[in-house]
Amino acid sequence: MSGAHTTEPDHEFIVVVVEPETPGNVGTIARAMKNFGIYDLRLVNPPPLDPDGEAYGFAGHAREDVLPNATETTLAEVVAEYHTIGTTAVSHEDSTRHVRYPFKTPTEIADSLESVKTKTALVFGREGTGLDNDELSMLDEVCCIPADGRYPVLNLGQAATILMYELRQFTVEETQLPDVERERASEAEIDVVYRFFDDLLDAIDYSEHKRDKTSQMMHRLVGRAHPTEREAATLTGVLRRAAEHARNPERFRDD
Amino acid sequence: MSGAHTTEPDHEFIVVVVEPETPGNVGTIARAMKNFGIYDLRLVNPPPLDPDGEAYGFAGHAREDVLPNATETTLAEVVAEYHTIGTTAVSHEDSTRHVRYPFKTPTEIADSLESVKTKTALVFGREGTGLDNDELSMLDEVCCIPADGRYPVLNLGQAATILMYELRQFTVEETQLPDVERERASEAEIDVVYRFFDDLLDAIDYSEHKRDKTSQMMHRLVGRAHPTEREAATLTGVLRRAAEHARNPERFRDD
Repeated sequence: MSGAHTTEPDHEFIVVVVEPETPGNVGTIARAMKNFGIYDLRLVNPPPLDPDGEAYGFAGHAREDVLPNATETTLAEVVAEYHTIGTTAVSHEDSTRHVRYPFKTPTEIADSLESVKTKTALVFGREGTGLDNDELSMLDEVCCIPADGRYPVLNLGQAATILMYELRQFTVEETQLPDVERERASEAEIDVVYRFFDDLLDAIDYSEHKRDKTSQMMHRLVGRAHPTEREAATLTGVLRRAAEHARNPERFRDD
Repeated sequence: MSGAHTTEPDHEFIVVVVEPETPGNVGTIARAMKNFGIYDLRLVNPPPLDPDGEAYGFAGHAREDVLPNATETTLAEVVAEYHTIGTTAVSHEDSTRHVRYPFKTPTEIADSLESVKTKTALVFGREGTGLDNDELSMLDEVCCIPADGRYPVLNLGQAATILMYELRQFTVEETQLPDVERERASEAEIDVVYRFFDDLLDAIDYSEHKRDKTSQMMHRLVGRAHPTEREAATLTGVLRRAAEHARNPERFRDD
């Protein structure tokens, strides 16, 4: 609002649901919004959302913020303020009409938004009939989720979930998942596994002429599994102990 | 089973739901299965699925096949026959335990299955508590959906939908969407747009020294929008007509 140094986010998303028929679906969408870091829900002509009813029942933790903060709006208001993406299961089969064609898939939507700064509204339609042609013609882009041609019509809440999932790079600052990169064992730690494996081959008098090939196999197998530090250490321990047993069976038998 | 020439598919998927609590979620999962071309649903200790109840109510067209063909099973039976992928919202924060770590994201699962031929079971847990550690320890791999760290727990049906969506390359032979590649206008057709745009600049006596820059802008704008044949033709028609009006305003005024 003020101050030369405030920075606006590159992406701001709202979710708009046009004439949802069942409160449960509004709740489902609200939950998925919170799962993927979108908090601004706008409803066009919604059913009553009873705090003791299905909308709140299906919303999970979104019952605390997304759902009670949802506001009513009209499609015209949304179009005036946002870059709008309408969703539909059915696109035209050819390019001779403009309402549902060209479309983008959710991945393509994500790719195309990457290089622009924009306020975007994700617009979903009714459970039964979706957005009609008049509504879609008001919107800037059309998004279709690729599904099985024999039954491509997703449930409203599931379609919304997939689109938000695909846009998470813009809305989720930090996921629940640990940073995978840091957790792979170092090459040095993994090399220890190979060394003790080779030592085990030696300890069990493994056929000399097959040894190189088998050692190579172990490199390939462990290498493509990207072991964690803990896994490499555990494996090293097992291999070392096996080699010791092979070399000094009587020592362990005496224990 | 027989015949040297029968070819098995590289990938076969089943969906397993362990102790689903509410029939509605079973229906939701069945619908998403049909949307993404998976038909084999196995249930561990499910609630009764009344044909007039929520499971069938939420299943869409999957009420015709996926749901009535669902069978009861045990996790041990599934583990014996399939490569198993368990889903959980919560992974460990470090690599010192093996039950929920390492995990793969749905995209990573898809990538890793690409180069192998396998029968895979996607295993989902209870709505409230998911799969427990004992169950996860029976399974081959763990899948986590990256979501907002502040509220990463997706609804069961939505989590299942995302994983199946990400695996669609293995299960969906043909989507509902037309082949996009074929529908882009040819370069020749798009060049006609540029030619008539330049002609319009000429017809409206557009400043000579800005003409190249503006022409270039039009190339960039239209180029990155990948117009369809129809769009290119429509745009060409508008530009041509605008140029004609600019050159012979009296002719059109007389009409």
